[in-house]
Amino acid sequence: MDTTLPISFDDVARAHQRIAGVAHRTPVLRSRTADALTGAQLFFKCENQQRVGAFKIRGAYNAIAQFTPEQRAGGVVTFSSGNHAQAIALAASLLGVKATVVMPHDAAATKRAATEGYGAQVLGYDRYREDPEAIVRALAEERGMTVIPPFDHPHVMAGQGTLAIELIEEVGALDVLITPVGGGGLLSGCATAARHLAPRCAIYGVEPEAGNDAQQSLARGEIVRIDTPHTVADAAQSRSVGRHTLPVLRALVDGIVTVSDAQLVETMKFFAARMKLLVEPTGCLAAAAVFAHKLELRGKRVGIVLSGGNVDLARFAALVA
Amino acid sequence: MDTTLPISFDDVARAHQRIAGVAHRTPVLRSRTADALTGAQLFFKCENQQRVGAFKIRGAYNAIAQFTPEQRAGGVVTFSSGNHAQAIALAASLLGVKATVVMPHDAAATKRAATEGYGAQVLGYDRYREDPEAIVRALAEERGMTVIPPFDHPHVMAGQGTLAIELIEEVGALDVLITPVGGGGLLSGCATAARHLAPRCAIYGVEPEAGNDAQQSLARGEIVRIDTPHTVADAAQSRSVGRHTLPVLRALVDGIVTVSDAQLVETMKFFAARMKLLVEPTGCLAAAAVFAHKLELRGKRVGIVLSGGNVDLARFAALVA
Repeated sequence: MDTTLPISFDDVARAHQRIAGVAHRTPVLRSRTADALTGAQLFFKCENQQRVGAFKIRGAYNAIAQFTPEQRAGGVVTFSSGNHAQAIALAASLLGVKATVVMPHDAAATKRAATEGYGAQVLGYDRYREDPEAIVRALAEERGMTVIPPFDHPHVMAGQGTLAIELIEEVGALDVLITPVGGGGLLSGCATAARHLAPRCAIYGVEPEAGNDAQQSLARGEIVRIDTPHTVADAAQSRSVGRHTLPVLRALVDGIVTVSDAQLVETMKFFAARMKLLVEPTGCLAAAAVFAHKLELRGKRVGIVLSGGNVDLARFAALVA
Repeated sequence: MDTTLPISFDDVARAHQRIAGVAHRTPVLRSRTADALTGAQLFFKCENQQRVGAFKIRGAYNAIAQFTPEQRAGGVVTFSSGNHAQAIALAASLLGVKATVVMPHDAAATKRAATEGYGAQVLGYDRYREDPEAIVRALAEERGMTVIPPFDHPHVMAGQGTLAIELIEEVGALDVLITPVGGGGLLSGCATAARHLAPRCAIYGVEPEAGNDAQQSLARGEIVRIDTPHTVADAAQSRSVGRHTLPVLRALVDGIVTVSDAQLVETMKFFAARMKLLVEPTGCLAAAAVFAHKLELRGKRVGIVLSGGNVDLARFAALVA
């Protein structure tokens, strides 16, 4: 059955070799307090401490590393609210490829600065009015660039799944694996890895209540598009899952649950106060679902992906103080 | 020569066995940005992610675990600005021993609440007017309690040194090891471990500019007492090193340097923005000295102890925003 899906475990395993020495093997943290609150054994995979502050470097590097010489010469272009942008910029820089990033005007200042800091050209757009995919397509055609989208690409999906390989290698088979879901790149990659390494592992995605398009898409079996949701989880404001990610989610994911912005902020405070970690709101999605008891986890070994930590300090301070 | 000192490497090694399964083996993190800024290879030992949020659980548990049955029955008493208080409270609770903690009225609310949460009785005092040691001595005599002071006790010192064993086991021999210094418990324990495991390792302590009593004491070869210093580093407001710690510091430590409060706050921001870590001001001392180029470290392998992460979120927000 895997052969009908856009990625296989072998793709994720090869991606893991490709990113070795480039992406960090991020820590897996435990918290006795979190375990006591939930009655489960929780394993937090700290991709907030990944290079560029989010898991996105895994997929970005895996994609650009497979460029042909012509593609390398033409450069890479993408659109992103921030973390994928930094990842493409850094991966391109490491591989000697020119990068152009189309980014919302209201993206976090740290994210724009970091993207430019890695040498990428940043072009702004209006998150609520313009279609970044169309802008990127036009750029690609005019300038011979290759588009690496933030999630809907087999090489990106396979790259993101590498963190699940590391997590399961480090802590052993899990009963449950939970990740944030925006467009489904992270979730589809992790599901592909986990299904192979821990076949009995249940796999869940978590998205903001304000934009439950992935939940709707899985329920209907087809891509459901929504308006850009207004949520504190700015890296999960995708308007739909992708044509590559949806079949993987349908085949391998046990369910999608949602959490409120208030639950995300409470979870941010928990990570800061108890685990001394800065986690961005989107990075709190999976943990927030656990702390809000959205899933029955008592007695289970649960992997939780903290997907990123890129939040302006002023914004973080305003949210947690 | 070691036999004339109050603790030996064997004491630290036995402490390490004693605390196994009680204290976390905390992560060691790297940062390419920090390495690039300093030209060194920096290894950050994250005791901010230790149980109770600071290294203090190591020494507290090592001390109470060695109580006689009579001492266990009488209970433990201590004074502390916060982290040692929580550590004594938790260690006593785990070992079934009653704990009393004398704490400044203006200690961080989170620290007082956490100490009480572990079941200890908290008694307040005025940090700038009263002598906590005298209060504790009186309590010990009246009620048959055993005093475990925050630093000046061989069992406490040996316990704190266990983190240096873990660090060197994990990353190999270091050229330099740098820790915060208040009363010298952490530094003396780590120096004892590092000198044995990595004999050529240079060892430095860092204290706040506002209260350089350790620097003065090492220069004069005797304990120099100062008024309680006014500094953002609230866990390094000790008024002097101790009679047990000073001989170890004199024998094993290569030097003490100081940093300003402004340098501590800059370092807090670095950890939050780049490494996604909450580190309390005192926990930033060693790293701040490195970032402020107080030592010549180019090309060296440097261990840096992030000693704690217990800072109220509101205070953290006010400092970094």
